[in-house]
Amino acid sequence: MSEKSSLYPELIRAIKPATGTLGVLLPGLGAVATTLIAGVHLINKGLAQPHGSLTQMQRMRLGKRTNPRFALIKEVVPLTNLNDLVFGGWDIFPENAYQIACHAGVLSRELLDQVKDQLESVRPWPAVFEQAYVRRLSGPHLKAGPTKKHLADMLIEDIEAFRRREGVQRVVMVWCGSTEVFMQPSPVHETIEAFEAGLKANAPEISPCMIYTYAAISAGVPFANGSPNLAVDIPALVEYAHKRHVPIAGKDFKTGQTFLKTVVAPGLKAKMLGLTGWFSTNILGNRDGEVLDDQGSFRTKEVSKSSVLGAILQPELYPDLYGKVFHKVRIEYYPPRGDAKEGWDNIDIFGWLGQPMQIKINFLCRDSILAAPVALDLALFLDLAQRAGLSGIQEWLSFYFKSPMARVDLQPEHDLFIQHLKLTNTLRILVGEEVLDHSGLDYYESGDAYRAGMGGA
Amino acid sequence: MSEKSSLYPELIRAIKPATGTLGVLLPGLGAVATTLIAGVHLINKGLAQPHGSLTQMQRMRLGKRTNPRFALIKEVVPLTNLNDLVFGGWDIFPENAYQIACHAGVLSRELLDQVKDQLESVRPWPAVFEQAYVRRLSGPHLKAGPTKKHLADMLIEDIEAFRRREGVQRVVMVWCGSTEVFMQPSPVHETIEAFEAGLKANAPEISPCMIYTYAAISAGVPFANGSPNLAVDIPALVEYAHKRHVPIAGKDFKTGQTFLKTVVAPGLKAKMLGLTGWFSTNILGNRDGEVLDDQGSFRTKEVSKSSVLGAILQPELYPDLYGKVFHKVRIEYYPPRGDAKEGWDNIDIFGWLGQPMQIKINFLCRDSILAAPVALDLALFLDLAQRAGLSGIQEWLSFYFKSPMARVDLQPEHDLFIQHLKLTNTLRILVGEEVLDHSGLDYYESGDAYRAGMGGA
Amino acid sequence: MSEKSSLYPELIRAIKPATGTLGVLLPGLGAVATTLIAGVHLINKGLAQPHGSLTQMQRMRLGKRTNPRFALIKEVVPLTNLNDLVFGGWDIFPENAYQIACHAGVLSRELLDQVKDQLESVRPWPAVFEQAYVRRLSGPHLKAGPTKKHLADMLIEDIEAFRRREGVQRVVMVWCGSTEVFMQPSPVHETIEAFEAGLKANAPEISPCMIYTYAAISAGVPFANGSPNLAVDIPALVEYAHKRHVPIAGKDFKTGQTFLKTVVAPGLKAKMLGLTGWFSTNILGNRDGEVLDDQGSFRTKEVSKSSVLGAILQPELYPDLYGKVFHKVRIEYYPPRGDAKEGWDNIDIFGWLGQPMQIKINFLCRDSILAAPVALDLALFLDLAQRAGLSGIQEWLSFYFKSPMARVDLQPEHDLFIQHLKLTNTLRILVGEEVLDHSGLDYYESGDAYRAGMGGA
Amino acid sequence: MSEKSSLYPELIRAIKPATGTLGVLLPGLGAVATTLIAGVHLINKGLAQPHGSLTQMQRMRLGKRTNPRFALIKEVVPLTNLNDLVFGGWDIFPENAYQIACHAGVLSRELLDQVKDQLESVRPWPAVFEQAYVRRLSGPHLKAGPTKKHLADMLIEDIEAFRRREGVQRVVMVWCGSTEVFMQPSPVHETIEAFEAGLKANAPEISPCMIYTYAAISAGVPFANGSPNLAVDIPALVEYAHKRHVPIAGKDFKTGQTFLKTVVAPGLKAKMLGLTGWFSTNILGNRDGEVLDDQGSFRTKEVSKSSVLGAILQPELYPDLYGKVFHKVRIEYYPPRGDAKEGWDNIDIFGWLGQPMQIKINFLCRDSILAAPVALDLALFLDLAQRAGLSGIQEWLSFYFKSPMARVDLQPEHDLFIQHLKLTNTLRILVGEEVLDHSGLDYYESGDAYRAGMGGA
Repeated sequence: MSEKSSLYPELIRAIKPATGTLGVLLPGLGAVATTLIAGVHLINKGLAQPHGSLTQMQRMRLGKRTNPRFALIKEVVPLTNLNDLVFGGWDIFPENAYQIACHAGVLSRELLDQVKDQLESVRPWPAVFEQAYVRRLSGPHLKAGPTKKHLADMLIEDIEAFRRREGVQRVVMVWCGSTEVFMQPSPVHETIEAFEAGLKANAPEISPCMIYTYAAISAGVPFANGSPNLAVDIPALVEYAHKRHVPIAGKDFKTGQTFLKTVVAPGLKAKMLGLTGWFSTNILGNRDGEVLDDQGSFRTKEVSKSSVLGAILQPELYPDLYGKVFHKVRIEYYPPRGDAKEGWDNIDIFGWLGQPMQIKINFLCRDSILAAPVALDLALFLDLAQRAGLSGIQEWLSFYFKSPMARVDLQPEHDLFIQHLKLTNTLRILVGEEVLDHSGLDYYESGDAYRAGMGGA
Repeated sequence: MSEKSSLYPELIRAIKPATGTLGVLLPGLGAVATTLIAGVHLINKGLAQPHGSLTQMQRMRLGKRTNPRFALIKEVVPLTNLNDLVFGGWDIFPENAYQIACHAGVLSRELLDQVKDQLESVRPWPAVFEQAYVRRLSGPHLKAGPTKKHLADMLIEDIEAFRRREGVQRVVMVWCGSTEVFMQPSPVHETIEAFEAGLKANAPEISPCMIYTYAAISAGVPFANGSPNLAVDIPALVEYAHKRHVPIAGKDFKTGQTFLKTVVAPGLKAKMLGLTGWFSTNILGNRDGEVLDDQGSFRTKEVSKSSVLGAILQPELYPDLYGKVFHKVRIEYYPPRGDAKEGWDNIDIFGWLGQPMQIKINFLCRDSILAAPVALDLALFLDLAQRAGLSGIQEWLSFYFKSPMARVDLQPEHDLFIQHLKLTNTLRILVGEEVLDHSGLDYYESGDAYRAGMGGA
Repeated sequence: MSEKSSLYPELIRAIKPATGTLGVLLPGLGAVATTLIAGVHLINKGLAQPHGSLTQMQRMRLGKRTNPRFALIKEVVPLTNLNDLVFGGWDIFPENAYQIACHAGVLSRELLDQVKDQLESVRPWPAVFEQAYVRRLSGPHLKAGPTKKHLADMLIEDIEAFRRREGVQRVVMVWCGSTEVFMQPSPVHETIEAFEAGLKANAPEISPCMIYTYAAISAGVPFANGSPNLAVDIPALVEYAHKRHVPIAGKDFKTGQTFLKTVVAPGLKAKMLGLTGWFSTNILGNRDGEVLDDQGSFRTKEVSKSSVLGAILQPELYPDLYGKVFHKVRIEYYPPRGDAKEGWDNIDIFGWLGQPMQIKINFLCRDSILAAPVALDLALFLDLAQRAGLSGIQEWLSFYFKSPMARVDLQPEHDLFIQHLKLTNTLRILVGEEVLDHSGLDYYESGDAYRAGMGGA
Repeated sequence: MSEKSSLYPELIRAIKPATGTLGVLLPGLGAVATTLIAGVHLINKGLAQPHGSLTQMQRMRLGKRTNPRFALIKEVVPLTNLNDLVFGGWDIFPENAYQIACHAGVLSRELLDQVKDQLESVRPWPAVFEQAYVRRLSGPHLKAGPTKKHLADMLIEDIEAFRRREGVQRVVMVWCGSTEVFMQPSPVHETIEAFEAGLKANAPEISPCMIYTYAAISAGVPFANGSPNLAVDIPALVEYAHKRHVPIAGKDFKTGQTFLKTVVAPGLKAKMLGLTGWFSTNILGNRDGEVLDDQGSFRTKEVSKSSVLGAILQPELYPDLYGKVFHKVRIEYYPPRGDAKEGWDNIDIFGWLGQPMQIKINFLCRDSILAAPVALDLALFLDLAQRAGLSGIQEWLSFYFKSPMARVDLQPEHDLFIQHLKLTNTLRILVGEEVLDHSGLDYYESGDAYRAGMGGA
């Protein structure tokens, strides 16, 4: 039948149970982070549902199609319960999570007021921040120190103090901060030694986001990067994560337009429909939009968004179909939208004999609503990875990222459906279940197929 | 690594070579059929490319990601060459394929004139047709006979005469005719005995499309049904195909709006985004649109188009997310569009905490341009199946259909990406290659992973 | 200069002042009516603004462009103040306006609660209703009587009782009820004598909407018809309105898609852009959508919506440009939308040398939000008309209707901009102001033009 | 009745007949110009129709609605016949009009070949051009001279030589060249004396477009500016046109997105629907798109496109409705589109009680197809104006421009419908016909209204 009993016996893991509480630390206590925190508390109170979260709602098939079992992911692998999450974070403003959430305008006041106490209790620590890296932002609630190494140490102290105060068993960190200016890998980013020297020498190539990543790994805390910032993906920090046995994942939450792009592009390729151009524009009105109105930050995001098509379409294999794609991505700050974000995609395709056709997609989405469950899943899956003894790059979490990380000698995977199968088959492997390959010929060509096919005895 | 050497050794087939010519018979010599025929001749002359065809252009990965080989499908399995195709067909009008193609207006006169001779040589045989089954059509070029059995025999004679005249080694048939009125399975459709009795008794439950299917199977000719008509999927004919060792496939070419629906819906489900409603409207102006302007034919198409969402979204597993989807499909005859077909989809989704969002898709597509390569691939793959000794329902061809067929005890698969993996993994299995499961954890957690991951020595 | 002092001195009117209160009676106390009532009270309390209402917000230019005065319409003509409105109505359900508004879901509970008392005090009288005329509706709160004449008399008694109880000086009626089945003019509708005989004989050609209209005119109450029902536009009732000196207006509020159509079509015609097709679909989920899901009611609405293009484009004058327009209007009941209504228009145009182009418009509108200020303006303008001594058809109110009424020997005017100029110039005429013709050549070709044009001395 | 016999007797003109031929000179022999020339010849041969042209196809009502006459504009005023046009032009490339048109790809080769001879005979004169003003373009076919005055004189010589060679009675010039970098009015532009001094001193404030304008006026040739360049609208040249008795018009052809904007915005305002934002993006792939990819040229176009909304919506009168409009216009070079141009507009509006709604417009238009008839009409109307003795700014031609010109003490008119009425009423005035004011109350309130209204005796 389609599935075989474990093909990967050597990869089965004895996963430590998810006992006790899990601290979830969020650098950047803005719209996404507070939407996540408010949501978890609303869900715990039975006032809302965790739509959009695979860890909470998704089922996977185990067993054969003739006798399938559709089990919740959280029943297949041991995940921390939502009731056991404790939140903390850093921000450049001192407001508590309730105040921030009210200001962000993502959730109605009516919803927020039902978890007001829980939100008010989350007060950000002062942030590591420099305006040179995010030109459109500035805030008063900052750490100060003579070197970046000092700043990193202060973050580690925050983490340890949080562990002690809250009594959490484990901690994960998910970057929810802003997009920094575009940076390219440099010698400082090559080795952990060079990086640590740079920290002490205040190297300009080391951005705040990197300092958080370094602090997390130092403290044994798994780290996910929700932004396109160059940080967890520099060789120095990948190496460091391996050495410290810390799982890491990145980068740039895949939410609205890019999510749809990684749905539609694989569909076009599966059908061998050619592509001459893809024009994507976004209008959004929140702080994210304001930050991206700066060319430096926009460049970082643009690079992250643009890599998607090439990796999926493989123009080197299909020069006739995908060799001349004009791909343009625009992000437009448009305050009337608020946190709602709207994408408009124009896709110029061609089929049989080169005949042209067009697809236009208008996505009226909501940034933080799409990002919050991604942040949640990453927190829970990274904690799972740590308990399963995995470390370094977690490629099986590519599903969640615009710019997924992979071994340097592997092509990162962008196709949402391959990413999804990678995620679920990895979970199956970890617990010794059969993987799915969806081939299915055995249902028809084995001995009993005709009879079964005919519904006969 | 991700792939294991053949997991399905018992399914490896000794496939007969594709020597000689293949006859492709097309009931319904309209826009789709003539676009296919013209295209094949243009491609053979080097004047156009077979975009949209997997058999001609698609590559599959063989081997590991660290050392992949991306081979053309037609290099992996032995397919009939486009130069070896010979076309024939039936229609209710006597015009030759050139005249029909000019009238259909799908391809420019400039293109058609370059293969005028080849098109003119395809003259349809008189059709088996009754207006009771397609109310908006009528034509003069019809067969007449006292019973449906006589009509079936006349079709078989056409096939045999074609074999002799053209000297073709093998023959396949792909239904490109119109959508018939909605019919439900009845006792006549249950067994081949009942069906053959019905043929002789002129049972009204037996439509022209069924007569073609019966004739094809009788003549040992693989059959694919490009329309939503109840025909190849009735138990009588499935059983008959098994007995005669004839591969069959159906039904209803998946081309424009439904193609995109089976791309987007799996994306929503992968992300656990809920759905409250999906409204799909189509405007089209060709003969297909005119036929579907009749409520009887529309109902047949509507049923075919509507089953898609439920099968993909599994509301029984996800009642909160997909238990109350309002799905409405409309087809509107709109002559200004001609053969171009335009879909507009409005998709109402919800995410984290039930917050609503919307996706709107406008697909300016071309019906025949999307359908022609589907018909081609089905012809070539069914011929392959026959040479590989497969018979009955070819579920691995689900990729091409709005209403894919499956064993009665299996849920048909609608997700385009699962269908695509099913197709490619089936091809891998037939030739003894490793299947892909996309898990990939072994690249990271085997002994050499860290080193490779670091690009190190 | 562009304007001349009154060109129509004989049409200047001595308008009675708007002293005391005005009763606004609404047959059909549903979403539109309650959105109107709630809105007026919210505005009176300073909690909201009358956006969308010309009587409350629009300004008109008086005087020359070189020295213009932009006066509020309500300063130019004496209109009843919003504080002086008193509402009443009829419905087939006995719920009060607060309950209905909560159920309709147009306005948030937060808004409604601020005028809860005022809304609760509006309790509908039992309605005149028969399900034969609106098949999808039925309700318990109905009047009963042996003949339609008796029912009409009961309505008149309601009006008179309302006058006495509320002490209102004047009354107007605006039909906000449902769309009835399609009816064509018949002998009963020809003269007031025939109509009154029909009332007594329970003629099936007399619908509930006609009975309300008859009652209003009998009671000297101006009447506007917000639905496409054949009623105020039958010759019998037009004649009756003249005899009773009652102003009337109709029919079918112009709100969402048709509003935009009467904006865009005049633009195409002004530019001499040809039209091959216009496909309009609507999705809506409220009671209105449910009623229109019935073919009988849909036909009435379809006819009303379809007449628009022909009247604007004048195909008889422009056979090359507009002689072969394929115009199709669809309304689709789609519950996920609720009161929000969405239109999608596909417009196939052609320009220079017949080259084709397309316009697609997606209007995410809200039915009751657009209709409420229309109902308000009609109430206030009809009251003005009565005080100004106007009676019968008020063509200058065409702006508000999908199927505007006109003298039988005149072509109704559908172009929104001509309608708007007609409305504003009519107001100018009534008070003796100069009309605008927008010609403006005099600013350039009179003696002082060059100097002024140069800004010189 | 609605119309009065001539209200403007002093403005009636004795218009000279349009005898003989008219030379139409086009600086910038690109896609627009060659589409115009090819079209006129195709029309003259009876092979195509002048869709999109008011001078050729539009009718105006003369007389009362009860007895209307719908006369073609070209029957009401004496316009030059299309058979009497002779074309010439300047370009930076030496190719003839046939070669350019083939390269532009606006019209099919099949169409162009039918007027090949006529197109080949139009060979551009060397252009006055400097790359500093249009950074993305450069070409070899240029005039050279020591000062801009010399260049202007060379243009005048071209015009005079053209007159002599072709024997044309009259000449007009319509700028079809590229958008120059953004310039602001400076002292050189203030008076004709300063301007002529600047020409001699090679003042950088004087762009090529201004040199053409100066040359035209000097030669007594009416001039229209199809681009947003600062040129015909500087005080020096307005004054010069008055002195020379030359009619002028500008600026920036109103074709696709802005055309629709000036259709929809007046509709919103007429309805008193508020506006929070309007986001407009354009994708286009022709030379125009390439030029506008430069920030300097884009700025010029952006300013021209942005002024539209404010002028129509009058935020100073309606601060609540239009005081905070976020208006953003983007133009994106997207080569897959070719000459086809696509606009996507997102319009955020609000109605009754501030409730939000959205309109989205997708315009798949064709730049040159929309612009060519505009250029034609301007040529013919400017020639009419000159024969009617009009000079200086022709505000009645505002209809054709994104940035219409007006007397400095008047607000330019952007509303397409007011512009259209201004145009047609101006034509009525010139020939002594009654203007329309669309009031229409007289049809109802004059003595015979009731009778007529009832259709009675």
